[in-house]
Amino acid sequence: MDRKPLFLLSNDDGVSAPGLQALIGMLRPMASLFVVAPDKARSGAACAITSDVPVSQRLLHAEEGLTVYACSGMPADCVKLALDQLLQSGPDMVIGGINHGRNDSINANYSGTLGVVREGALHGIPSVAFSLSNHSLDADFSAMQPYVERIVALTLSEGLPYGTCLNVNFPDGGTYSGIRVCRMAYGRWIDEFSPCEHPRGGHYYWLGGEQVNDEPDDPDTDAWALEHGYVAITPTTVDVTDYRLKSQLEDWDF
Amino acid sequence: MDRKPLFLLSNDDGVSAPGLQALIGMLRPMASLFVVAPDKARSGAACAITSDVPVSQRLLHAEEGLTVYACSGMPADCVKLALDQLLQSGPDMVIGGINHGRNDSINANYSGTLGVVREGALHGIPSVAFSLSNHSLDADFSAMQPYVERIVALTLSEGLPYGTCLNVNFPDGGTYSGIRVCRMAYGRWIDEFSPCEHPRGGHYYWLGGEQVNDEPDDPDTDAWALEHGYVAITPTTVDVTDYRLKSQLEDWDF
Repeated sequence: MDRKPLFLLSNDDGVSAPGLQALIGMLRPMASLFVVAPDKARSGAACAITSDVPVSQRLLHAEEGLTVYACSGMPADCVKLALDQLLQSGPDMVIGGINHGRNDSINANYSGTLGVVREGALHGIPSVAFSLSNHSLDADFSAMQPYVERIVALTLSEGLPYGTCLNVNFPDGGTYSGIRVCRMAYGRWIDEFSPCEHPRGGHYYWLGGEQVNDEPDDPDTDAWALEHGYVAITPTTVDVTDYRLKSQLEDWDF
Repeated sequence: MDRKPLFLLSNDDGVSAPGLQALIGMLRPMASLFVVAPDKARSGAACAITSDVPVSQRLLHAEEGLTVYACSGMPADCVKLALDQLLQSGPDMVIGGINHGRNDSINANYSGTLGVVREGALHGIPSVAFSLSNHSLDADFSAMQPYVERIVALTLSEGLPYGTCLNVNFPDGGTYSGIRVCRMAYGRWIDEFSPCEHPRGGHYYWLGGEQVNDEPDDPDTDAWALEHGYVAITPTTVDVTDYRLKSQLEDWDF
């Protein structure tokens, strides 16, 4: 294409998160960037949307090739608002992240960063989410740069089928064994809530817990790839139909 | 089984919603019911979880065979809290709804009612979501009863594969052409935000819009079934991997 491509960026850690700032730095040479990200952290927002109160936005920054808005809504709201109201023309890609923390395995169901790119996929726009296996605000994202550039450039040139997106997870540590195309690992969260006492009484619970990988030895999974130092690319769909179960249900006597 | 089965119920319209009350009425003869539902409406919550503040619960009602809690969290939090802290033993099923409004097609990605049953599926518990194509608080759910009983009884006896659940949508009107097992229809929301002015100024936007069905003539879809008077059962998975795209990506030159 002659003009510079236009990328819509969002995340779930909030507009001021270092991971988003790192992503902006990596992608600025490639494209014009239009950022609409939550005004506060919205971790675990999944594909949630806001319909009980209006959402609002605030322009934080505007210069040639970089526009940044904070939005009061969820990650999916940010994408919807950008596409429906704020952008003059459709973006070439929707990019989520870089998330502080991994979004592989069953966490793709909970992740707001995945909410960003599933929303992009629902609008038929090639969309890629990036996450680093490090929750710290001081995480070092720099080693990801050549991989992010390559994956974005390839997605831009190849495109993605309607309703699909890429969930890309990086191991922590700054060196990678390579890239693996994976499926989502099955697993479980256990001991999810820790009770805590309010100073004035009452039962409160912090969500936390521990994740168990149900198939740690399967090299086809994203969790295996991360544990073995690979960048894991999990092709992801918004079609939640279970086609195998669909066939089985034909035999049920409804 | 000898003992009466135990069902965990939740929804996204909130613990006081008539749809949940109707579901309780339909299922009480079949099972002991343990209800943990959001203390306010959480429509569009998807699989969102609450990790930035503690969640709390309040016991509203307890009698033989029926316990009701209100929870400050999201629908998925309600299921997690019940399973991890409130229930003495694992439930035989997780049941979501009855939702005020349809959750077919791409809305399965946004629905908090689906968040309930996807959480159940992530815990390996047979889970079914029920929704009626009527947003009104005065909707009449009564005609659904024999279908709800039959679908729940069948799911209880047959079980569901790990990581799967059923998304059951009813047309409005009280008479049904039958049951169809469907796939999720593809579609889009358009004109999603309506700008509104704050009395003191500032840009605010209500999320609303209009849904477009991209494949209105395909009788394999849940949207087609609903439009033609059928009860639509869409088998649903928490595995968001796109396996077709996975094969295609093997050819990309990463």
